[in-house]
Amino acid sequence: MADKKMVEAITSMNEDFAQWYTDVVKKAELCDYTSVKGCMVIRPAGYAIWERLRNELDKRFKETGVENVYLPMFIPESLLQKEKDHVEGFAPEVAWVTEGGQQPLTDRLCVRPTSETLFCDYYKNVVHSYRDLPQVCNQWCSVVRWEKETRPFLRSREFLWQEGHTAHATAEEAEARTVQMLNVYADFLEDFCAIPVIKGRKTEKEKFAGAEATYTVEALMHDGKALQSGTSHNFGDGFARAFGIQFTDQNNTLQYVHQTSWGVTTRLIGAIIMVHGDDNGLVLPPKVAPTQICIVPIQQKKDGVLEKAAWLKEQLSNFRVKVDDTDKSPGFKFAEQEMRGIPLRIEIGPKDIEAGKCVAARRDNGEKIDLPLDNIEERIAELLDNIQRDMFEAAKARRDSQTYEAKNYEEFKQIFAEKTGFVKGAWCGDQACEDKIKEELAVTSRCMPFGHEDCEGTCVCCGKPAKKMVYWGKAY
Amino acid sequence: MADKKMVEAITSMNEDFAQWYTDVVKKAELCDYTSVKGCMVIRPAGYAIWERLRNELDKRFKETGVENVYLPMFIPESLLQKEKDHVEGFAPEVAWVTEGGQQPLTDRLCVRPTSETLFCDYYKNVVHSYRDLPQVCNQWCSVVRWEKETRPFLRSREFLWQEGHTAHATAEEAEARTVQMLNVYADFLEDFCAIPVIKGRKTEKEKFAGAEATYTVEALMHDGKALQSGTSHNFGDGFARAFGIQFTDQNNTLQYVHQTSWGVTTRLIGAIIMVHGDDNGLVLPPKVAPTQICIVPIQQKKDGVLEKAAWLKEQLSNFRVKVDDTDKSPGFKFAEQEMRGIPLRIEIGPKDIEAGKCVAARRDNGEKIDLPLDNIEERIAELLDNIQRDMFEAAKARRDSQTYEAKNYEEFKQIFAEKTGFVKGAWCGDQACEDKIKEELAVTSRCMPFGHEDCEGTCVCCGKPAKKMVYWGKAY
Repeated sequence: MADKKMVEAITSMNEDFAQWYTDVVKKAELCDYTSVKGCMVIRPAGYAIWERLRNELDKRFKETGVENVYLPMFIPESLLQKEKDHVEGFAPEVAWVTEGGQQPLTDRLCVRPTSETLFCDYYKNVVHSYRDLPQVCNQWCSVVRWEKETRPFLRSREFLWQEGHTAHATAEEAEARTVQMLNVYADFLEDFCAIPVIKGRKTEKEKFAGAEATYTVEALMHDGKALQSGTSHNFGDGFARAFGIQFTDQNNTLQYVHQTSWGVTTRLIGAIIMVHGDDNGLVLPPKVAPTQICIVPIQQKKDGVLEKAAWLKEQLSNFRVKVDDTDKSPGFKFAEQEMRGIPLRIEIGPKDIEAGKCVAARRDNGEKIDLPLDNIEERIAELLDNIQRDMFEAAKARRDSQTYEAKNYEEFKQIFAEKTGFVKGAWCGDQACEDKIKEELAVTSRCMPFGHEDCEGTCVCCGKPAKKMVYWGKAY
Repeated sequence: MADKKMVEAITSMNEDFAQWYTDVVKKAELCDYTSVKGCMVIRPAGYAIWERLRNELDKRFKETGVENVYLPMFIPESLLQKEKDHVEGFAPEVAWVTEGGQQPLTDRLCVRPTSETLFCDYYKNVVHSYRDLPQVCNQWCSVVRWEKETRPFLRSREFLWQEGHTAHATAEEAEARTVQMLNVYADFLEDFCAIPVIKGRKTEKEKFAGAEATYTVEALMHDGKALQSGTSHNFGDGFARAFGIQFTDQNNTLQYVHQTSWGVTTRLIGAIIMVHGDDNGLVLPPKVAPTQICIVPIQQKKDGVLEKAAWLKEQLSNFRVKVDDTDKSPGFKFAEQEMRGIPLRIEIGPKDIEAGKCVAARRDNGEKIDLPLDNIEERIAELLDNIQRDMFEAAKARRDSQTYEAKNYEEFKQIFAEKTGFVKGAWCGDQACEDKIKEELAVTSRCMPFGHEDCEGTCVCCGKPAKKMVYWGKAY
């Protein structure tokens, strides 16, 4: 354990979760602060995680017929103003370009906080007939929202994301796409990121500016706070009417299109850190990890050790492997691999080689396992599968143990006074109750979970007959 | 040929090359204009080409040790001003953000036209010792330059690119990386894009703002105009001194780092259009093409035709294939496939099926070939290889036939009066000659080609003893 000192210690999670998070982000070299207030550098170790997430999601999108495009990063003020709710929602937090090429601009340009208006402008140009539908486009880009308080990956003035925007001939088709993409996010989060999620619908108060309905996947962090991890919006024909996006249907009648949008952001990296991390640093699920296996040669100057490490790497070439043959001590290398969250460490030294084995150490639970070198690829594949599954199960058990139920406002307040987590509580449907809960407890409605939308009983706030079941929580 | 009318005709290349280019971009649905002046939408067919180029280049970069990162899109004015030549070069064409979150900014932010200053700011934070070197980072992002005249892909106010930025312990290592990345671009352009290039060095007049040396790959378009297709810059320690990027070397002495940067942009799509395209539209090299093969069933309502087309697609699943089984006429489908530049069309109808064959039509030269269905995968692989090679050879022959030599200013002016192309001409090294040539003929020095840097003879402009061989041309 003395070797641990060689990698600078991080604050313990229980002592100060916010500081623990900042320490992990910094010491695992995921990102760095910049001279640009509220903006960060995503460093190689952080960007490699984003590339893994992006490539996997992009593949899943394309399997559902999504095509990628790129639209301008600027939105003329006149265009942004076309949809009333939308402009009201975003105007307070945009950045304005007022000068270009040493000339003041007549119509100033906002740096896109989201691109609904630009996609509408585009679809208006290319959609004419039912034959041009559906349009199922997506872009990977950065957006800007002028946040006051920022935290790496969770909230920054510029962040990376994808935004899908679709246009359909019917309301039914738009609704089906909205739910389909929410399910893509949920499957991706659970299967790939090992993060269990609650799928549900946002209340009117919490929905997206301009949407008819917003669906969300909500995850619970280690500290019991909720993180909205992906959203999918059904716009109905509101934007189409505001922008005049019409098509001629099979009966030669002019109709408005029905639209959706859906997105996830670099917040996902924050979710992975806060769901899986521990007091030794980052813990990455094998499917996400840019490096899955770190081979650490023991007594590496002895004859044959580095050669055997290289042989092992070769045997494991179907995985993402590296050998740490630097001149650091093994203890330092262990601590570093743990800080960076590499799922599996393989130690191999002269004694192991003699015994025809190696030692595998799991990052998620610290278990050390002797593995015969025969059939090593198969054994490692199984081990990585187990880690992925166990990480999901552990996260799910943690979330379930932090999910409570409240029948009335006394219970509700009592729980949030003592604990942090999801609280399931029925709701009358009146925004006044949401406002009161937010004001008094800093708690928001996270979602109305699918499959339990309607409920009996009374509102957890006002005691009147309840209409909807709601997951409540403190959120990032 | 009557079917051709079914796809709207495009202007002939010889009649009006600029209009031909615009028509191809529009009719092949590569991009579209927007309400944002000088910015465009890259549509699915265009973006899919960019994804192919980006993924291939990214793979080649990573093979040389490059790591991807993401830096802010904003540069504070105070940061931009730290390197004198650099700020002078870019200040006239930047866009300024002056207001964020409904507050005026005290230090206004420029939208990045390039990120040298931000990378310097970052390297200053993370480079301390020789152990932290080299830093070999790259980012894929968009940049903004406030151009007055814009053309799709060739010049727009916002464009997509990659910018690599490296920091090294020695001048030699920085120079080696500068040349290495130029060679990556040259190989990529020739092998993947089938575009022959001239590699060389830019003159002082044409080099990048703040660089010690700029290297370039120059390609020749169908109309004889040159297109700078990729550049690689050696900064020496100029930026390091301006930003204070120092490290402790093995002898415990403080040293400045030596830096490079290198980039290619969505201009590459413009180059592919203008090198390979013809009067029927786009022509894509097989390695670039998002769809390599379009199978067109003939008399598709007849029994077994669609089944055989599906079988064929299955046989060719190692390629990027689609079947056009829409209810358009075969002639319309042919014209559409030609417009979109799909390298190979396979026609299959009842008679072909009976004869156990199909008909392959090459997009590049129009050749039609009967192919037996046995071993079809192998035959198609060979055919695609041939198309890729033949497209490169054809482009090279075209370029060589448009490359001239001039011994004196009379010859030089005569050539540019009659023709457009590369002109090889010796140069005295004096910028006054470059200025005169540019003013009188709108011709610029494209590069001093590698391997022929030094030359005998006299300057093609002033007649004094020559120092360097130069490729001259009219450029996009």
